[in-house]
Amino acid sequence: MMPTSTYTIHNFSAGPCILPQSVMHQAADAVRELDASGLSLIEISHRSKAFVDIMEEARNLVRSELGLPDHFEVLFLQGGASLGFLTAAMNFTPEGSSMDYAVTGTWAKKALKEAMKMGNAQAITSSEDTGFNCIPPLPSQSNAGAVHITTNNTIYGTQYATDPNTDKPMVADMSSDIFSRPVDLSKYACIYAGAQKNMGPAGTVLYIYDKDAAGKHGRDLPSYLDLEVHAGKDSMFNTPPVFAIYTSMLTLRWLKAEGGVLEMQKRNAAKASCLYGEINRNPLFNGFAKSDSRSVMNVTFTAADDAHTQMFLEACAAADINGIKGHRSVGGFRASMYNALPISSVEVLVDVMKEFERTHG
Amino acid sequence: MMPTSTYTIHNFSAGPCILPQSVMHQAADAVRELDASGLSLIEISHRSKAFVDIMEEARNLVRSELGLPDHFEVLFLQGGASLGFLTAAMNFTPEGSSMDYAVTGTWAKKALKEAMKMGNAQAITSSEDTGFNCIPPLPSQSNAGAVHITTNNTIYGTQYATDPNTDKPMVADMSSDIFSRPVDLSKYACIYAGAQKNMGPAGTVLYIYDKDAAGKHGRDLPSYLDLEVHAGKDSMFNTPPVFAIYTSMLTLRWLKAEGGVLEMQKRNAAKASCLYGEINRNPLFNGFAKSDSRSVMNVTFTAADDAHTQMFLEACAAADINGIKGHRSVGGFRASMYNALPISSVEVLVDVMKEFERTHG
Repeated sequence: MMPTSTYTIHNFSAGPCILPQSVMHQAADAVRELDASGLSLIEISHRSKAFVDIMEEARNLVRSELGLPDHFEVLFLQGGASLGFLTAAMNFTPEGSSMDYAVTGTWAKKALKEAMKMGNAQAITSSEDTGFNCIPPLPSQSNAGAVHITTNNTIYGTQYATDPNTDKPMVADMSSDIFSRPVDLSKYACIYAGAQKNMGPAGTVLYIYDKDAAGKHGRDLPSYLDLEVHAGKDSMFNTPPVFAIYTSMLTLRWLKAEGGVLEMQKRNAAKASCLYGEINRNPLFNGFAKSDSRSVMNVTFTAADDAHTQMFLEACAAADINGIKGHRSVGGFRASMYNALPISSVEVLVDVMKEFERTHG
Repeated sequence: MMPTSTYTIHNFSAGPCILPQSVMHQAADAVRELDASGLSLIEISHRSKAFVDIMEEARNLVRSELGLPDHFEVLFLQGGASLGFLTAAMNFTPEGSSMDYAVTGTWAKKALKEAMKMGNAQAITSSEDTGFNCIPPLPSQSNAGAVHITTNNTIYGTQYATDPNTDKPMVADMSSDIFSRPVDLSKYACIYAGAQKNMGPAGTVLYIYDKDAAGKHGRDLPSYLDLEVHAGKDSMFNTPPVFAIYTSMLTLRWLKAEGGVLEMQKRNAAKASCLYGEINRNPLFNGFAKSDSRSVMNVTFTAADDAHTQMFLEACAAADINGIKGHRSVGGFRASMYNALPISSVEVLVDVMKEFERTHG
């Protein structure tokens, strides 16, 4: 095996993103050999006891760490949130009704687009007019059968501060903030989330849903898009993405050992306070999102003087800071601070910002 | 890291299955650290140059190793062949026409079931009446716009000996025999294949299709199910399954270095000859598939005396033979002999069969 480099990269990548070092090492070990079995994780049958146990542990960790009521189902599927847009709409738009969408960013807009192809979805609110720089209030009443939200907007760095209130069951894309804080599950019919932020590597998508809300769509769904088909096969309707599920299971074990979502909420708040404090203070930088809509996961900011943008990116690179370049829709910088990012990396970034002010201010 | 065990397992698992040892070790190394970058393969952005290069190398290796004409597209997506049943039917059933299905096993039947939900698919031939123990001849004429085949039937151990002839473009599920031999691409509009046999680990599915045959479906497809949407984004419409694609790329590099599909065809023929020879000779065992339909990839056989079944499974376990138990639809035994399985493992199995005859005959 290759030796592991000894230097530390401060990995602010928006996703796929940093995972706990211990998880990456354990995952590597399992690809070499799973638990002294003589076989690699990736060459065993998904019907073997070893893998069935992994799948069940992963599903149970989702239950325990989010405190799921018994009437919620847990599935690990494929296709990412992009297929989830379709699957969620197909499974949770009640027959003869429609789904209202809160359009708060690029992914929310894509979710609505997929649902509109089915002919029964519409926007209930949008922040597109202001360049998606805020989370508009969610109307307390909806005429639809369900309301879809995107809890965190990775590209624009905006986030619902808490689970919003509306009078219909919510369906939520939580790809970029699940497991970062507790969730009030009583408000949701379905939550889906691509793994590649707080939960694991790219390649699997988590579905959590209220079984009592499922099956009311009145459609003859294609098998792969029917969540109840997957549930009937314990999330093994077809060959699951073994590596992505195993590594998600390891990450959930880590989450539990570290103190769970309440501890993550504290750590993420401390990291956000550290970086937003510097953005507020440092005259060379401007926050992108409105203060009351700022994301704890993805911090978007720009240089006050655009001539500084490239220079600051170079200063970050010199400090072994990775993935800080902003998405082309916003420009500037984006610091993604998922669960596994240590506050020490945020402190390094803040130090670079302070030093940049000293040398360029 | 954990030490790797020194004993050898003879891995006949039907999939996920054996991959080259060197591939599993390189994949493990990359999960620890990708190319001395200081970062794991699974924590980098899929938009990074490192991963874009991996994706392009994987796609180019598919092109070179199958000898794809320029008008063929190559995509690595998610959802397995089970979502492929739907995607292939949606994209390649021409508008106003239908797709004919050759029903040669469980997966072929499932493919037809998904397509029938769209209302324009039917069986053109079937071997269900004889328990799927053979490949029925494919009619040379079809009244549909395309003909769907499953080239190898993993569960029943049957396979088309060569690419069959019919007068319409074929769509094929090649999950369990792609890269095991050359393919006459002029006969196909689309080929799809779950990775987890000859190509890589579970978690990605390969689509190869004739661009001239695409886009004639006349449907407003959901984005994730529209192959042209994925092609327009160079197979990165959404976050790809990074690990599965990287490991597939490594397996394709190995394939190329070993001599490509022609060399695999030779090796697979030698392995099949070795095992079928013993099944023919040994009075304690019966082959399941009809001789002219026998699969080179999955060898299905049973004990002549059912009282021997469990005893033979135990004899195999004692010889470190893994994954030999037959699928419940057939019973008995199944030896899957994918590209990475060395002939030495087949020889061990044959020795166990001979010894079993000596002690139980």
